[in-house]
Amino acid sequence: MDLRKQVQESIDTKTKPVGSLGLLENIALKVALIQQSRQPVIREPQVVVFAGDHGIAKTGLVNPYPASVTAAMVHNFMAGGAAINVFCRQHQLGLTIVDAGVDADLSKYRPYPRFIDAKIARGTKNFQFEPAMQFEEMERALQAGTAIAKEIAAGGSNTIALGEMGIGNSSSAALLMSCIMHLPVCRTVGKGTGTNAAQLAQKRATLQAVLTQHGTICQLNSPLKALQYFGGFEIAMMTGAYLGARDSGMVIVVDGFIATAALLVAHALQPSILENCIFAHCSGELGHHTMLHYLNAQPLLNIGLRLGEGTGAALALPLLQSAIAFQREMAGMDTLNHLIQERLEAW
Amino acid sequence: MDLRKQVQESIDTKTKPVGSLGLLENIALKVALIQQSRQPVIREPQVVVFAGDHGIAKTGLVNPYPASVTAAMVHNFMAGGAAINVFCRQHQLGLTIVDAGVDADLSKYRPYPRFIDAKIARGTKNFQFEPAMQFEEMERALQAGTAIAKEIAAGGSNTIALGEMGIGNSSSAALLMSCIMHLPVCRTVGKGTGTNAAQLAQKRATLQAVLTQHGTICQLNSPLKALQYFGGFEIAMMTGAYLGARDSGMVIVVDGFIATAALLVAHALQPSILENCIFAHCSGELGHHTMLHYLNAQPLLNIGLRLGEGTGAALALPLLQSAIAFQREMAGMDTLNHLIQERLEAW
Repeated sequence: MDLRKQVQESIDTKTKPVGSLGLLENIALKVALIQQSRQPVIREPQVVVFAGDHGIAKTGLVNPYPASVTAAMVHNFMAGGAAINVFCRQHQLGLTIVDAGVDADLSKYRPYPRFIDAKIARGTKNFQFEPAMQFEEMERALQAGTAIAKEIAAGGSNTIALGEMGIGNSSSAALLMSCIMHLPVCRTVGKGTGTNAAQLAQKRATLQAVLTQHGTICQLNSPLKALQYFGGFEIAMMTGAYLGARDSGMVIVVDGFIATAALLVAHALQPSILENCIFAHCSGELGHHTMLHYLNAQPLLNIGLRLGEGTGAALALPLLQSAIAFQREMAGMDTLNHLIQERLEAW
Repeated sequence: MDLRKQVQESIDTKTKPVGSLGLLENIALKVALIQQSRQPVIREPQVVVFAGDHGIAKTGLVNPYPASVTAAMVHNFMAGGAAINVFCRQHQLGLTIVDAGVDADLSKYRPYPRFIDAKIARGTKNFQFEPAMQFEEMERALQAGTAIAKEIAAGGSNTIALGEMGIGNSSSAALLMSCIMHLPVCRTVGKGTGTNAAQLAQKRATLQAVLTQHGTICQLNSPLKALQYFGGFEIAMMTGAYLGARDSGMVIVVDGFIATAALLVAHALQPSILENCIFAHCSGELGHHTMLHYLNAQPLLNIGLRLGEGTGAALALPLLQSAIAFQREMAGMDTLNHLIQERLEAW
C-alpha cells in the first residue's frame, strides 16, 4: 500500500467520524506526503522576516507611512515589540530577521542573535523611471534567499514561514500579481496597510501608469523580468527562500498578500512548489483571495489580517501542529470497538 | 475616558496599522470589556465536555453510529485518546468530563481526576412519543450546569469552553433551532457526524414528524418547553453552564452546532449572555452558519469541523490568547516614533 493510502486510512480510522476534522485532515495528509512519513513531525518551526525598502515609497504616491518606518520596524523586531515577536514568543517559534535591502545601516542597532545581513542595496530604484533592480541584483537576492532557507533547514528546522516588512511593498506585490496573472490594477491594487479612498485612487493611477509603461515587457512569459522591474529585494529574497525550502523538503507556511506574491514568482518558476505549501490565511487585502484561488489554496484562517511580518503564518502554526498531533496521538477505532465490546460484556 | 475608549486607543496605537489584526482586535476589546480591565488575561482556560444519551438514538432513525458510542467515547476521553484530549494537551487546557445522562454506569471506568457525575437519568426518553425529559429533570440539569460553571470559576478559571458528546444530539439541536428560530427542518437538520443521503432523508422525515406533533407547543415563546421536549441532558446542562459562566463573568468560548443550540436557549432566557461569548468556529454542519448569523457572531475559524467535543473551541483558544497577548505585549507607536527620530538624528 502506498504512503498516501496508508496515511489516509490512519486518519479515517481515528476515533471520530470520517472527515470531521475538516481541513486539518487534508493538512495532516499533506505534511505526511511532504515528509514522506507516516509519522510526520513539525521540528523547530521558524519565521523568517525579510525587510527591504522601495524607491517608489520615497515619492509618497503609494504609501500612507513614510519609508523610514521600514528601518524603525526592523528595530522594533529586534527589540521584541512587534506583533510577530508576540506571536513567535507565544508559540515558541524561532524568529530570524533578514536585511534584504533596508535603506539604513542596521549594524548600528542593538545586536540580535538571529539577524542576517544580506543587504543587496539601500532600497530599490523607483520603478516609475527604471527597473527596481538590476538583473544581477535580483539574481543575488534569489540566491541569498535560497541559501538562507537551506541553512535554516540544515540547522534542524523542517518548517518555515516567510514574512516581510517594507513600506511600499504591497505595490510591488500588486504589480507582480498583475503581470503574472494578467489582471488589471483594479483587481490587484488594494489599500495595503491603510490608505484611504483618495490615496487608493492615487496609488492605482500611479501603478496603472507604471504598468502601461513597462508591463508588456514583463508579461512576456517572464516572471523574473517582472520581479526585476517591480519587485523589492525582500520579495526577491523570499522567492529564493521558497525555492530553497522546497529543495530542502520543508513544510512552507505561506503568509499574506506580499508573501503570496513572492510565491507566485516561485510557482511560475517551479509549479511543484505548491506540494510543500500550507496556506495560513486569506488576508483582508484586496487581491489576496484571487491569488489564493489561482494557486488552488485552502487557507486556514480568514480573520481580516493585513499586517504582514509573517503574523498570519505564526497565528496559523498551532493549527498545523494540531493536524500533526491528532494524526499521531488519537486512538484508533479498534480501541473504541474494544471499549464498546467491553461495555456490552460488562452490562 | 471610559474603558472601551481607553482599550480601543491602546489597540489603535500599537506598532501596526490601525485595524490590521482584524478580528483579533475585536476580541481583544471584547475580553477587556468582559473582564472590565485594560489588561485582560486568560486564566486557567477549561474545556468542559457534557455527555448524555438520547432516546431517539436507540431507534437508529437519525444516527449512523449506535447509541453505545456515547459511553465508549466518554471512556476514550478518560483514557486520553480522543481529539479533544489531543488539543487540550497541546494548548494546556484543563479538560473536565461531565456525565449529564449517559446510559451506562461510568463508575466502572478508570478514575479520571476531572470527572463530574451529574447524571440526571440513563438517557432521555424518545421524543417521538413523549417529552425527552420531565420539566423537573430539565430544571435539575440546568441547575447542575450552572453550579459546575460557577465551581470552575471559583477554582480560578476565567475562561470556559463547553463541548458535548451524545449520539443523536444533532437531532435535538436541530429541533431546538427549528423551535427557537422558527425554521423548517430542511434548514436545521444536517448530516450530523456523517449520515449519507438516504439516512439524511430519513432523519429529516423523522424529525419533521416530531416537530409537526409537538412543535407548536414549543414554539409558543417557550424555549424551556422546547428544551424539555427535544433537548438532551447534556444540552440542558450546557445551557445552565452558559448562564452560570455569564453570572461568573467568564469569557465563554462557543463551539459548534450543538454547543450553539444550547446557547440559543440560554440567549432566549438571557440575551445579554452574548457579551461574554467568543465564537470559535463555523462548523461544516448545515444549520450552524444560520445560527451564528442569528446571534450576530463572527467566528474565528471556518475549516469544516463537525466533530463536537469542544474541539473547535480548543483549536480557537490560541487565537483568543493571541488577541490578549498583542494587546498586552506589543510596543506602542510612541516607541516607533522615538526610533524613527533616533534614526533621523543618527544619519
